[in-house]
Amino acid sequence: MAASDEILEHILTNPPKSPFPIAYSFLAPNARGLDNARSILQQHRPAVSPSNDDSKSKPSVEISVFAAATESFSQKNLNCDIETSLRRFKDVIQGAKADGLRVRGYISVVLGCPFEGRDVDPQRVAAIATDLLEMGADEISLGDTTGMGTGPSTRDLLKAMHAAGIRNEDIACHFHDTYGQALVNTAVSLEHGIRIFDSSVGGLGGCPYSPGATGNVATEDMVYFIDSIGMKTGVDLVSLAEIGDWISGELGRPNASSVGKAILGARRRNSSS
Amino acid sequence: MAASDEILEHILTNPPKSPFPIAYSFLAPNARGLDNARSILQQHRPAVSPSNDDSKSKPSVEISVFAAATESFSQKNLNCDIETSLRRFKDVIQGAKADGLRVRGYISVVLGCPFEGRDVDPQRVAAIATDLLEMGADEISLGDTTGMGTGPSTRDLLKAMHAAGIRNEDIACHFHDTYGQALVNTAVSLEHGIRIFDSSVGGLGGCPYSPGATGNVATEDMVYFIDSIGMKTGVDLVSLAEIGDWISGELGRPNASSVGKAILGARRRNSSS
Repeated sequence: MAASDEILEHILTNPPKSPFPIAYSFLAPNARGLDNARSILQQHRPAVSPSNDDSKSKPSVEISVFAAATESFSQKNLNCDIETSLRRFKDVIQGAKADGLRVRGYISVVLGCPFEGRDVDPQRVAAIATDLLEMGADEISLGDTTGMGTGPSTRDLLKAMHAAGIRNEDIACHFHDTYGQALVNTAVSLEHGIRIFDSSVGGLGGCPYSPGATGNVATEDMVYFIDSIGMKTGVDLVSLAEIGDWISGELGRPNASSVGKAILGARRRNSSS
Repeated sequence: MAASDEILEHILTNPPKSPFPIAYSFLAPNARGLDNARSILQQHRPAVSPSNDDSKSKPSVEISVFAAATESFSQKNLNCDIETSLRRFKDVIQGAKADGLRVRGYISVVLGCPFEGRDVDPQRVAAIATDLLEMGADEISLGDTTGMGTGPSTRDLLKAMHAAGIRNEDIACHFHDTYGQALVNTAVSLEHGIRIFDSSVGGLGGCPYSPGATGNVATEDMVYFIDSIGMKTGVDLVSLAEIGDWISGELGRPNASSVGKAILGARRRNSSS
């Protein structure tokens, strides 16, 4: 997999064509990571010469930091305790904000840890989120990295976030569908007032600590569900299903989206009958 | 696949060992089907000689009929219109009840039809259910055969059932996870007061009219979800996951249960580390 700086370099040099603004989230684990992003952005600072094709504008870039909700996961993933990781992130976040960059603070394993199990303290998660927001992060993404989250534990976490004074607008939910609960947890979050959700086309991704487990909830499934309850996503589900199937094929992995497979299966049936 | 009468013959001759009562649902499309079941049951009427192993009692048998919620599906599946199918079922149901047999009335495609789309009339479903109950059926299983059901359409259907005077205790919900909505729909049904749900281990099954589509919601996923919201199922989830994986292997198909795969994946990880 290409590193963040290679991807950033690539998309700034060859901006993907899109009718909508695209944002790239650059993972900066520490101040040095941020410097890398800065120097790449600097090289591309003189705007791409205006072309006639105005759908080809440069993607915006945001800086992301990844904290963990448990000490064990922080040690395994970042080689330091949570406290130390937050000190490092402070430099990254404040440096990024000084440069006018948007910052997203991810917190991993908020609803279950591969090393500590499902009893992750929601108050602790809310405290970490508060620290990141006070450092200047614009948004917190609550990552159910293991997919162990359930309706009730999602609700308890969001209540703890609310009790800590964190606004719903500053929260994104990031569910994995490992145990098939991602849409149930999305429903609970929507009811609570959350409106930002992470997902990946074809359900790409996963958790290296959970072999055999499925990855992020598929964007196709998420969009289908949100459409089904009458909310508007503005996403063309059939095109999305095609993209999910294409990228899964390119990567040589099965398409992990139920909706994608069902939509394309129904289309094959209709075209052959 | 073995026919209903072969399976019935087999399980009466070789009762599966189980600490809990087992029921076998015998599909009787018409009066002749019921006669088959009757004659097999008759042959086995003299109870199996009482053995010391009292966990090996004979499974109970219930008779099932399969109606459809749309005319197109009824024609394709039963070769007759809904009205005609109900007349045939009347003989089956009344005959079975006369013999003291429990009867389950399935209604297919209640939340979406492969031929007529997603706008299936909930009032029509409630009317068919009422007819079946009046003929003597003990329970109605509402089949979302295509998996096209959503939270709102599930709610609308259950409201129509309620408005028709049908009791929640007489309703089972039968969801397919084709579009990943089975647990969302289960949540809506639980909220509505439904307590009987059909599912199949490993997500076996499917809809012959939806190639590429996944099958019945996996029992593993259903049990995990119901456990997660604090209701008791009495089912050992790890054993269930093992059974789902075993039978999927025997049938040479991928294990379609997210929960089953995640549980067994986590166990493999723990035993190898």
